[in-house]
Amino acid sequence: MEKNKLPEIFETFDEARQQGFIKMKNFKDNGEKVVGIFCTYAPKEVIYAAGAHPVGLCSVSDETIGEAEKHLPKNLCPLIKSSYGFAITDKCPYIYFSDVIVGETTCDGKKKMYELLNEIKDTYVMDLPNNPTKESGQKLWENEVKLFKEKLEDKFKVKITEEKLKDAIKLCNHERALLQELYNLPKLRPTPISGTELHTILFGSGFMFNKEEQSIQMRELIDNLKTKYANNECEISPDAKRILITGCPSGGVQAKIVKPLEEAGAVVVCFENCIGTKNFNNLVDENEEPIKAIAERYLKIPCSVMSPNEGRHEELEKLIDEYQVDGVIDVVLQACHTYNVETERVKRTVNAKQTPYMSLETDYSTSDSGQIKTRLEAFLEML
Amino acid sequence: MEKNKLPEIFETFDEARQQGFIKMKNFKDNGEKVVGIFCTYAPKEVIYAAGAHPVGLCSVSDETIGEAEKHLPKNLCPLIKSSYGFAITDKCPYIYFSDVIVGETTCDGKKKMYELLNEIKDTYVMDLPNNPTKESGQKLWENEVKLFKEKLEDKFKVKITEEKLKDAIKLCNHERALLQELYNLPKLRPTPISGTELHTILFGSGFMFNKEEQSIQMRELIDNLKTKYANNECEISPDAKRILITGCPSGGVQAKIVKPLEEAGAVVVCFENCIGTKNFNNLVDENEEPIKAIAERYLKIPCSVMSPNEGRHEELEKLIDEYQVDGVIDVVLQACHTYNVETERVKRTVNAKQTPYMSLETDYSTSDSGQIKTRLEAFLEML
Repeated sequence: MEKNKLPEIFETFDEARQQGFIKMKNFKDNGEKVVGIFCTYAPKEVIYAAGAHPVGLCSVSDETIGEAEKHLPKNLCPLIKSSYGFAITDKCPYIYFSDVIVGETTCDGKKKMYELLNEIKDTYVMDLPNNPTKESGQKLWENEVKLFKEKLEDKFKVKITEEKLKDAIKLCNHERALLQELYNLPKLRPTPISGTELHTILFGSGFMFNKEEQSIQMRELIDNLKTKYANNECEISPDAKRILITGCPSGGVQAKIVKPLEEAGAVVVCFENCIGTKNFNNLVDENEEPIKAIAERYLKIPCSVMSPNEGRHEELEKLIDEYQVDGVIDVVLQACHTYNVETERVKRTVNAKQTPYMSLETDYSTSDSGQIKTRLEAFLEML
Repeated sequence: MEKNKLPEIFETFDEARQQGFIKMKNFKDNGEKVVGIFCTYAPKEVIYAAGAHPVGLCSVSDETIGEAEKHLPKNLCPLIKSSYGFAITDKCPYIYFSDVIVGETTCDGKKKMYELLNEIKDTYVMDLPNNPTKESGQKLWENEVKLFKEKLEDKFKVKITEEKLKDAIKLCNHERALLQELYNLPKLRPTPISGTELHTILFGSGFMFNKEEQSIQMRELIDNLKTKYANNECEISPDAKRILITGCPSGGVQAKIVKPLEEAGAVVVCFENCIGTKNFNNLVDENEEPIKAIAERYLKIPCSVMSPNEGRHEELEKLIDEYQVDGVIDVVLQACHTYNVETERVKRTVNAKQTPYMSLETDYSTSDSGQIKTRLEAFLEML
């Protein structure tokens, strides 16, 4: 599929991450602070309020997994092994330049990996409750957000005022609203944007550190896509089978899942995962006490690490309708227990909507690319 | 190794679990209540105070794993799959007769499995904090113990008074003290009890529901073993290499790890796992408010699900000295992320004590028995 009309802006997002090393170095040369984050549960508002740049560290290639396996078991999620591998090999500019890394006790593998990571980098771990519905868990998490604020105040010798937090909330809410507006476009039929393009932009936006500039570019991009649709200039067929991707973070497996689906004539219209909905669904309440409001927003993320996690089922039912989805593909990274066990109930939820479902367990290697391509094509044929 | 002198008492413990179906049925026929537990974190005092019998549900055979894998991923801990498999096939009397099952959010696999289990049995999940050192986590756990008390009060229509809790604390402390006394015997050289025998007794004691009777038998057993040692009647050589087993619950892998070690002339003197130290180390403070005291005791369990988990390293260092350990074997059940990642630091701790260390990943099948036997023998040869 050719990138008509919008090549420059797309490239801006695509290149944002690749330019990271230089950008990071410039930040550090200017005395600016960088906080590495691993997860959508990391409360970015607190980082902005501390005057620092949050940057995503979930590594997406298998380049350093061999090194990581010297300390970590083979039977572990590739995202965790890759992240740790990049840290010990100094191959990731974002990890390398992070002043502090913040993790959350989301899953067993990450929680324990942080102990080893802390031996090389200052790694601050927030204790995430397992149950988002219990009052005691909500209180614990609110306290964790407060302690994180104190950690950054101490680390960077700054005072994080309520005003700074409120400004950061507005900044993040504005970005979320724009991402949501972009993300709503594939509800159109035909969609003016492919899943590959959408993934690139959603992923790249996390590496654009000048948020004002990003806002302008995002506005331009959305307007262009709307015009494209209005002018009937969409390249994607209105009959293309519409796929929703759910499950684990897809940054490291996009090329072997989204790409072959779209090359086979389907289109991915929705990402119910960390790069998609989970990252920008729900705004922080701007009228509430900031720490409390931030804690509440993040605990609504319907990740499989939560138990119960009814939010994910509700979200999937809603998205299947709104995006007129023809099939759901549940991506599970190797050895991710929470998502893997949750597939059973997700399958039931999706099937109850008379929508075909496929679960796909994979890792960051290319060894299963051919097999996955065949399975994806077989799935599309039966839609 | 022949079981001299103590066959009847040993058999009492060994058979305790096997007699379960009848015992459970009798309880239910008498209107007594049964609470199934999965983990050493389950606060047994609260169950006793509710007038119910706690019973361990961690299933130890691969008999039902095939059935479990219809709903659960293959790449999951055998203990979790086995437990769930026994539940859906009604093959375990303990699960079958449990009025309520209590789980804790110890690990990803269990946490998510409980959601499915709850569809067939009333499964109450306690939210265990990840970090045992933070005050907020301690408060959360104390509240969870309180909520569990309320759950049982509601379920069984009883009032759990402070007095009942204090009685239950005394009962459990007394049992712990006896288990600890038994468990101290292999510190003797030669040890009057083999690891196979010790494992059988520790495991069986969880299935002896008449605690007074158990107490008498345990006293008799300990006294007999002490006499045996005093009379120089121990069958085990004082030169037998002394092994400490650490890691995951060993109930399902005892036959392929402890047995071959002892058949090869070594002796297992110590179990730093759920069947051993974790289960009876630390008494509940009898002078403190009961709920708070119970919560404090259980949060001291140095399980790998905790992060940080410094307690395990301190415990291992102490045990290596006290039991004059020649080698440590770290048993990891397949796909147990917390123990598997923790092996890296455990290895360092053990090696720092100039003690050889081996990590062994296995499951409940017998397919790797031969290979494990060879590896164990090779490990013993280098001691």
